Order: sequence, then structure tokens, then C-alpha cells
Amino acid sequence: MNENRNCPRGTNSAESAVTGEFPHSRRAYLTGSRPDLRVPMREILLTDSPGGDGAAKPASIHVYDTAGPYGDATLCCDIRSGLAGLRENWIAERYDTETYSDPALLSEKSNCAGRGSGAGAFPVSRAPRRSRSGGNVTQMHYARQGIVTPEMEFVAIRENQRREGADTQQQTPHPVREGGMSRPAVITPEYVRSEVARGRAIIPLNINHPEAEPMIIGRNFLVKVNANIGNSALASSVMDEVEKMIWAIRWGADTVMDLSTGAHIHETREWILRNSPVPIGTVPIYQALEKVAGVAEDLSWDVFRDTLVEQAEQGVDYFTIHAGVRLEHLPLTSRRLTGIVSRGGSIMAKWCHAHRCESFLYTRFEEICEIMKAYDVSFSLGDGMRPGSLHDANDEAQFAELKTLGELTRLAWKHDVQTMIEGPGHVPLHLIRENMELQLEQCHEAPFYTLGPLVTDVAPGYDHITSAIGGAMIGWLGTSMLCYVTRKEHLGLPDKDDVKEGIVTFKIAAHAADLAKGHPGARLRDDALSKARFEFRWKDQFNLALDPEMPQRLHDLTLPAEADKASHFCSMCGPDFCAMRITRNIREQAGA
Amino acid sequence: MNENRNCPRGTNSAESAVTGEFPHSRRAYLTGSRPDLRVPMREILLTDSPGGDGAAKPASIHVYDTAGPYGDATLCCDIRSGLAGLRENWIAERYDTETYSDPALLSEKSNCAGRGSGAGAFPVSRAPRRSRSGGNVTQMHYARQGIVTPEMEFVAIRENQRREGADTQQQTPHPVREGGMSRPAVITPEYVRSEVARGRAIIPLNINHPEAEPMIIGRNFLVKVNANIGNSALASSVMDEVEKMIWAIRWGADTVMDLSTGAHIHETREWILRNSPVPIGTVPIYQALEKVAGVAEDLSWDVFRDTLVEQAEQGVDYFTIHAGVRLEHLPLTSRRLTGIVSRGGSIMAKWCHAHRCESFLYTRFEEICEIMKAYDVSFSLGDGMRPGSLHDANDEAQFAELKTLGELTRLAWKHDVQTMIEGPGHVPLHLIRENMELQLEQCHEAPFYTLGPLVTDVAPGYDHITSAIGGAMIGWLGTSMLCYVTRKEHLGLPDKDDVKEGIVTFKIAAHAADLAKGHPGARLRDDALSKARFEFRWKDQFNLALDPEMPQRLHDLTLPAEADKASHFCSMCGPDFCAMRITRNIREQAGA
Repeated sequence: MNENRNCPRGTNSAESAVTGEFPHSRRAYLTGSRPDLRVPMREILLTDSPGGDGAAKPASIHVYDTAGPYGDATLCCDIRSGLAGLRENWIAERYDTETYSDPALLSEKSNCAGRGSGAGAFPVSRAPRRSRSGGNVTQMHYARQGIVTPEMEFVAIRENQRREGADTQQQTPHPVREGGMSRPAVITPEYVRSEVARGRAIIPLNINHPEAEPMIIGRNFLVKVNANIGNSALASSVMDEVEKMIWAIRWGADTVMDLSTGAHIHETREWILRNSPVPIGTVPIYQALEKVAGVAEDLSWDVFRDTLVEQAEQGVDYFTIHAGVRLEHLPLTSRRLTGIVSRGGSIMAKWCHAHRCESFLYTRFEEICEIMKAYDVSFSLGDGMRPGSLHDANDEAQFAELKTLGELTRLAWKHDVQTMIEGPGHVPLHLIRENMELQLEQCHEAPFYTLGPLVTDVAPGYDHITSAIGGAMIGWLGTSMLCYVTRKEHLGLPDKDDVKEGIVTFKIAAHAADLAKGHPGARLRDDALSKARFEFRWKDQFNLALDPEMPQRLHDLTLPAEADKASHFCSMCGPDFCAMRITRNIREQAGA
Repeated sequence: MNENRNCPRGTNSAESAVTGEFPHSRRAYLTGSRPDLRVPMREILLTDSPGGDGAAKPASIHVYDTAGPYGDATLCCDIRSGLAGLRENWIAERYDTETYSDPALLSEKSNCAGRGSGAGAFPVSRAPRRSRSGGNVTQMHYARQGIVTPEMEFVAIRENQRREGADTQQQTPHPVREGGMSRPAVITPEYVRSEVARGRAIIPLNINHPEAEPMIIGRNFLVKVNANIGNSALASSVMDEVEKMIWAIRWGADTVMDLSTGAHIHETREWILRNSPVPIGTVPIYQALEKVAGVAEDLSWDVFRDTLVEQAEQGVDYFTIHAGVRLEHLPLTSRRLTGIVSRGGSIMAKWCHAHRCESFLYTRFEEICEIMKAYDVSFSLGDGMRPGSLHDANDEAQFAELKTLGELTRLAWKHDVQTMIEGPGHVPLHLIRENMELQLEQCHEAPFYTLGPLVTDVAPGYDHITSAIGGAMIGWLGTSMLCYVTRKEHLGLPDKDDVKEGIVTFKIAAHAADLAKGHPGARLRDDALSKARFEFRWKDQFNLALDPEMPQRLHDLTLPAEADKASHFCSMCGPDFCAMRITRNIREQAGA
């Protein structure tokens, strides 16, 4: 990444289509205790016409920004060279890691069968880094020793969104009834440390992914959203996936999972990692399965371990590992309507069934921990038994696995390995609370990371909505990160439009949850937008929206003229029937 | 309407674009205790390939159908002559009504200023009907006398969706935690009567709208969805609105509100009513305001009363009346961020403020009841003080009005006038329960009919989603009907695509609520769809979906070949990584 302010932007197709600042927005940085700790935010500039109430008005509002360097118009990003290593110094300064020259990551090791169109190896190679002599380099390990890392400070500044200056007291007059947390009004680096030490939050940051901007996943922080990308054997190229990643973070994805299963799985991941400012998650068993030509029975600990090391060396920040799928759980699925619907879960179930023994993910779990802590890869303990239909929700198989995941969490914590727990799936509204409460209890408050949940099975083609309903609900009750679902769920691989729509939909769910949890300052943006609406500042209303393009486009369908951006009505009600206009008239008369 | 099986369909543009049966569906009728009591349902035909479990499988599933005669391929509907009067005999047989020849409905009386393009007067005119000599012809009045009307029997059959035959016990194994109702497993006509008599449900059916198929709104029944249509001064023609109505009921709108405010308001409504098989609601103050040239201060009881009678004679089934906006409430809105956002509410507030006195809607409420009971028009008591932003949710103004609405409900019930209560608006997730509980308590369990609620203000352009999240939640807690919100909310008038998307989104919310309330048999369709999904019966999966077109279109984007409708995978995971396929393999091996 060149910090050349005059560089031509958009020379690469993957980048040009998906970057650039939003209208009336600019990149702002808040600097922490050291000059290289600069936390990015998006500052939305308001026009704010003078109102009648004489109250002081902010000229701008700062919002959380996941776009990374792509959201800074003064930077030039070349995806062939990758992003700058923001955290390189922080990692090196700790003097607990070393680079080495015999990496497992050589792409010869990976499965590169000639299906699909590859983009070739990533042009820049570098030596991977790992902990020195079996040491532990996880954020949890530091936190438990009382060390506040730059990563923790970065996270604290980022979570506050500059709301220290705002009158948050005035902004949250409503009593909070649910999900009441022990969160302070202003997040401090020390508070971040304590939550990570406690295991109630994770900062997924592999030391080999120094490009990543620190973020935190935990229920006392903002609810996060993950976007899944990745090609399948049937569709999409490497460049498509890099473009999807950049596109996803533009719209607010806090982490991205690369679920590629087809050809060029290693190269695709390398291109994504080197260009990603957000943590990247994977499901390593997918690549392991490719290495054994798709025959689940042929999987082995050796193949899996090598895959873990290969991906850890590349910089993957969290691994979904379905270590909770146990032999004794398999018969519990026999009365299910839709069996096992987790890809990783079904692969491991097949292996267990074929070998009639406990999976190596379970029996070798502490060996896996040793790898995780040498690179600071976080666990995302997969729910291989998640229900794939309402019929199967909250059943014995699901909860038996959850109990196992709780035991594994304790084991991971013994090694100071950061851990979150994946959750369902398809669950009707009235069974969501039981999921959340059991997860908190059995997994000792490790962060919950849920797919949806989808609250009905009858709406394929609209499952972004069925799952956002469940997502908002479970986020309110305590889930830390929501995995987005696109409208292509159950039907096919999402394209760019599906990705954007899925993310915006889940940002709505996550924000609704933040509001309901009474997150300090969560309502600042709502209030600013509603004020703009009431004052007919149409452009401010558009610019403050989660997606500024959509409302402007919809508004302009009927009132395209520039003058109508100042109109005191819209085409929904027309001029005579605008309630806001009438209310303003009443107020003006009352004041006169 | 001609029952000519060979008639050419689609001769009229408004109809041809929006009718026709869904793929693999056919219209079925269940006949009640008399031959002219035929309840329409949509029967979805399944291909149901033979499975391995040997259980008996239904060849079809019956679902609630709001499409009316337009959903019956054997019928020919000509919108120039209107629909048949399904209930004409039932009304006449009660010998408590009379036709008369000096109606207020002559269109000369209405405001027909030449703006916009009209379709002229509706071609067929008829004498209106009213109760004889001041009698009461409401369904509530009959119910309280112990009379079970054909309308009540129709509703009971309709609500059961033929699930008497299904093993509903097996279908609802989950304990229900919320919204537990006193509902029997099978709805009987007597149960319908008792709920209507109690005021806990309404059957909105004006005797001058005999074309309407009876439906019920109450929390012990399926959650219903209303779609708003209607032109504004700026957009849309009469024919557009008729087409939108037919389109809306195709996708599941249970009632339709005509919120027209522009020219030809009387004619538009007449065309809609004569062609609508679902109850039509209006906000009469809109037309009254047109009659006084848009000057709220010039409104009077006389103008309003004449408008009520005119619309009652046309057949409007429910009136939104903002009688709860009281003079003493106005100062309570002064600290609001977005003031009054209800159009009707703001009009009445302006009137009250200008005249410094209580509104005629409030002072003349019992006179309004006299009109309502002569035609069986139901009240939808409007929430003029509903919050238009999260900031204003659950405030003093909102709850002061709710208390007044509760008092008015008692008054309406004194006259045996059916009544429901309109609700907010913008409400964050954690404040929804308080709304529902207060409404049940203060309005004596009269049905709640809510707009959304929208759980955040930051997503203009996606407010169908923000409101579906709140809608599912409040529906679960006890709301009887959800008013849809389209993505154009706050921005402009919805077009056909917006209407469809809004309805499907709210059918999801309503169905999620039915499932969470443990409505008997609600999960039949979910289970049938999930079973089809697990068995790779792609076409059954599409046909069982709330919107059969969308999933097929999305699926076919990547796998368009007809052969792929039988594939045991989709492009999301590809053949090697399909969890359902792997699970089936394991089961087959276990069985072998």
C-alpha cells in the first residue's frame, strides 16, 4: 500500500468497483497513546440547517468503519502488493515471536487441481512468524498477565466511536429490560483486557495477519457481523472473492469467512488475507478434505494438523473446528427431519461413523490448542449439530454438542486460547432464549456467534429476513457476533448484490440489538437521522443511513429534481398530508 | 363475475398482470353447513418422491388463501363489473337491513377536482343497504346474542386450513413460552362467536361490501397482514391502485387500506371495493380534508359525518379514526424529536390547536358509533400520537392516547361496534413488550393492529426489514394484525415490486409469530418444506415457499438446467460438500 495521495485510483477492477468514500463522509483517525495507533472512523458530515430550538448541533457524527484503507480516499491500495502491516511493529516489539524459513505454507502442499480460473500465487512472499520456543502469543495470554496490548487500546477507542463527547445520558432515557451488561459508559483499554482475560470477549488476530485492524467480539461490546464468502466447485474465481471481501467490509462486515471449497483454495485465501483489514475465518476441514480428494473417510490427524499449520502461517485469524461432534451424538440425529446440515459437522460425522471412533478433532484437541497459541488463532467451535429446520431446533443432538463445546472451551482456556462458540441455525422465536441461556451457562460466557437464527423455514429466497429477525432477537439476548445470511441461502452462491443486501440486513439486526441492550451512545445515529428527517434535510437523512445509496435512489424515483431534496414532503403523502410538515406548522404557530 | 370456464383471461391489463394460479397449486373449496358457504384455500401439490422412512406422506398441503376469485383459474373476473356478492344472501336473510335510494354516495358529493387521470365512475351502480330503523347489524351484536353467523363459520373453517386431518400433535413438540393463548386445537364457529362477543376479535365486514370473504383479526387466530395502497397528489392512477390491490392479495394481504389522498378519491375507492375480496380500510379524515380544500381548520363534524356515511354506503369495512388525539395531549409532544408523524393525528392536532377545543371525533364518538353499527363498519382507533423515532417511543403522549383509546373501546363496545386499536411506529426491541402489555391491559384485549414497529431509525430504504423484526416480536407477544411497511417508507409511494416485497416480508413476520405462539398446525408448511429440502425435491421446496418465484429464480441463476432440479446439491456447497447429501449417505449406510 502506497501512501501516495496522487496515485490513480481504480486501476484494478477488483478495487475500483468497490472502494471510494461515501457521499459527505470522510475518513477520520483517532490516535491513541502512540503515534502508530490510529483508529479509523467514518465521519459523516451534516448540513444541519438552523433549527428553531436553538440547541447546539453537531456538524458531524462518527461511526464505526470496517472498510480499512479502502475507506480512505487519500490512500492507494494495490491488491497485488497487499495492505501495509499495521501491527507489524506491535508484534515484533513483544520479542516473543520469530520468523522461520521452512513454512508449511508452500503452495505445492495445497491442492491445486486445475479446476476453475486461478489468479496465480500472490506476488509477494514472506516468511511466517510463530511464537518462540513453544511460547504463547495470544491476546488472552497477555490479558491474563495484566498486559494491555496496543490491540486492546485500539479496540477500546474503536468501540467508543468518539461518543465520549456526546451527551449519552440524554440519548438513552429508556430503561433497558434485557441483556443488561456490566459494561462501563466508556470502554477503557483496561476493561477490554479484563473481558479478554475472562474469556467473555475475543480479539481474533493472527500474528501472521498484521494487516488486520483490531476488533473485539463479546457481548459487552457492539454486536458484530460476519460475512461468508468463498468459491465452491461450481462457481466464482479468486478475483471475484477478493472483490467480495472488499465489498463486504465497505458495507460493514466486521469479519469475513473464506469458505472456499473448490480449486486454488490456498491461493484464494492468500489473496484475501493480504488484502483484508478485517479478521479472516476459515473452516480448515474443507481444505483437508480437498487434500484427500473429497473422501471423508481418508481424513487423518496428520492431514488436518498440516492444514492448520499451513493456514496459521498464512494468517487466518479464527478456525471453525467441529470438535464437538462426538460418536455418541450421531444416533441422536436419527429422528431429525433434516439430519446434519453443517458441512463440517457432516464430514466429521461421516468419518466417525466410518471409523467407529471418536474424531481426531476431539481426541487431539489439546494438540490443536498448541498450534493455536503459537500464532494466536482463535477457536470458533463449530456447531456441527445445529438444526437445519424448525423441527430439529433445541433437540437432544444440538444440546449434547453444546455441552461438549463448553468442556472444550475450558480446555482451550487452560491454554489461554481465545474461543467463541457457534450457534444455530433454524430456531423459532420462542426457542431462541433457551439457546442463549444454555450457551451462556454451559460455555461459561464465551462469546456466542450465531447463524441467524432463521425463525421459519417457509421463505427460501428471503432468508436474509427470516434470519435477521432471529439475529436481532438473539443479539439482544447476548450473542456477540451474527453470521449474515443472504437471500441465496439454501439456493446458491451469493453474488455482490446479495452480499451487500445480506450485510446491510444484518447491520440492522446488530444495531437493533445494540439499541435494545442499551449500548451507550447506540442511539446517536438514530437520533441524528430522525432529526434530519423531521427537518427535511433529505441529504443528511440519506447520508446517515446504513446504506446511503438506497434511500436516495428510492426517493429520486418519484422526485428526482435536486430542488426536491429541500422539499418539505415526499411522494408518499404529498404536500398537504405530510404529518411532519403539519407538526412543524403547529409548533411555529404555537411559538409565534 | 362470470363463472364461465372458457372465458378468455387477461383481457384487462389490471387483472392479467396479477392473477393466475401459482405453479403446482390449485384452488380448493371447503364447504360448510350450507352449499353457499364455500371457503377458498390454496392446495399445493407435492411431487413427494418415495422416501426411506416408510411414513405416509401427504400428496398436498392446504394453505390460507387471500387471493379471492382471482386465485381460481376457473373463474373469469372482469373488473368493470366487479366481483360476485358472496355474502348477499347471508345479509338479506337476516331481514334486519334495507336498501334505500337517497344515498350520500353520489359522486357529485365527493371532491373530484381534475388532478390526475381518473377511470371515471364505476360502471355498475347499486342502492346501498343499511340497518332497518336504527337497528344494529354488527357481527359483535349477533355474537353477543349467541347467534353464530355464516360469516363466523366461514372464518372457523378458514382458520383451520384443513389441519384437522393432520397430526398437529406431532407437529408442535416444542413447549410454548410466550403468548400462550386460550385457543382450542381446532377453531369452531362457536369459538369464533365467543371471541367476537368478548371483543377480543373482529370480523370487519360492511354489509355494503358483500364481495368480501370473511376473515378474523384477533390474537387467538392467525396473525394477519394489512397492505396500504392509495394514490397521493403526486403519483399513481385509479387503475394502478386496483391492480395493486389485486397484486397485494395474491401475495397474502389479509386486508387492504386505501389511503388515497389525491383526486378521484371516491371513484378510486369504488373501483377497489367492487373488486376486492378482502376487507378494505380507510382513513375518512383524508377525504374530509380534501372536501375542505386541504385546510384542516375548516374541518367540521358535518363534513366528517357525511364522509363517514358516504364511505359506509360504499362498503368500507373499517375506519381509522383518530379520536384519541385530545387537546390535553398536544403539549406532551413538545419535547419530541419528530413530533406527530401520523397524518390523521397531525390533521386533528392542527384542528384542536386552531380551535382550542376537543376534537369532534372525541366529542361525537357515540354519534359515530351509531353510523358504524348501521353498516357494520369496524373501528380501527388510530394512534395519532405514535412515535416516529426511537427517541419518542413509549413516551407520555403515546401512552396518554392509549389510555383514551381504551376508554373509547368501552364506548364502542357499549354499542356493540367491533373495534381494534392501532399501534406504533418506531420502538426499539426492548420497549416492544411494554407496548403490548399496556395495550392489552388498557384496551381490554381489543385486537392490536401495529405498524411495524421499526426497531431502528438508521435504515431508510430497508424499513420493510427494520419493521418486520419488530412485527415478528410484537406478533408473538399478542398483536393480531401487522401493517406492512415497504422499503419506500419515509421516501415515496411504493410500486408493485415494493408491495410484493413488503407483503412477503410481513407474511414471514406473521408466520414467525404464529409459530412462536404455538398456533396449532402452524409448522405443517415449514416441515413440509424442510422435508422437501432434505429430499432434494427442489420444485416442492419452491412451490411451498411463501413466494415460489423467488427461490426458483435464484436457484436457476447458477444451475438453470432442468436436470438440476433433481440434483442432490446446489451451487452454494457443490456436490462434495453438501451436508444433507452426506447425512443421507450415512443413514443409507447405517440402514444397509
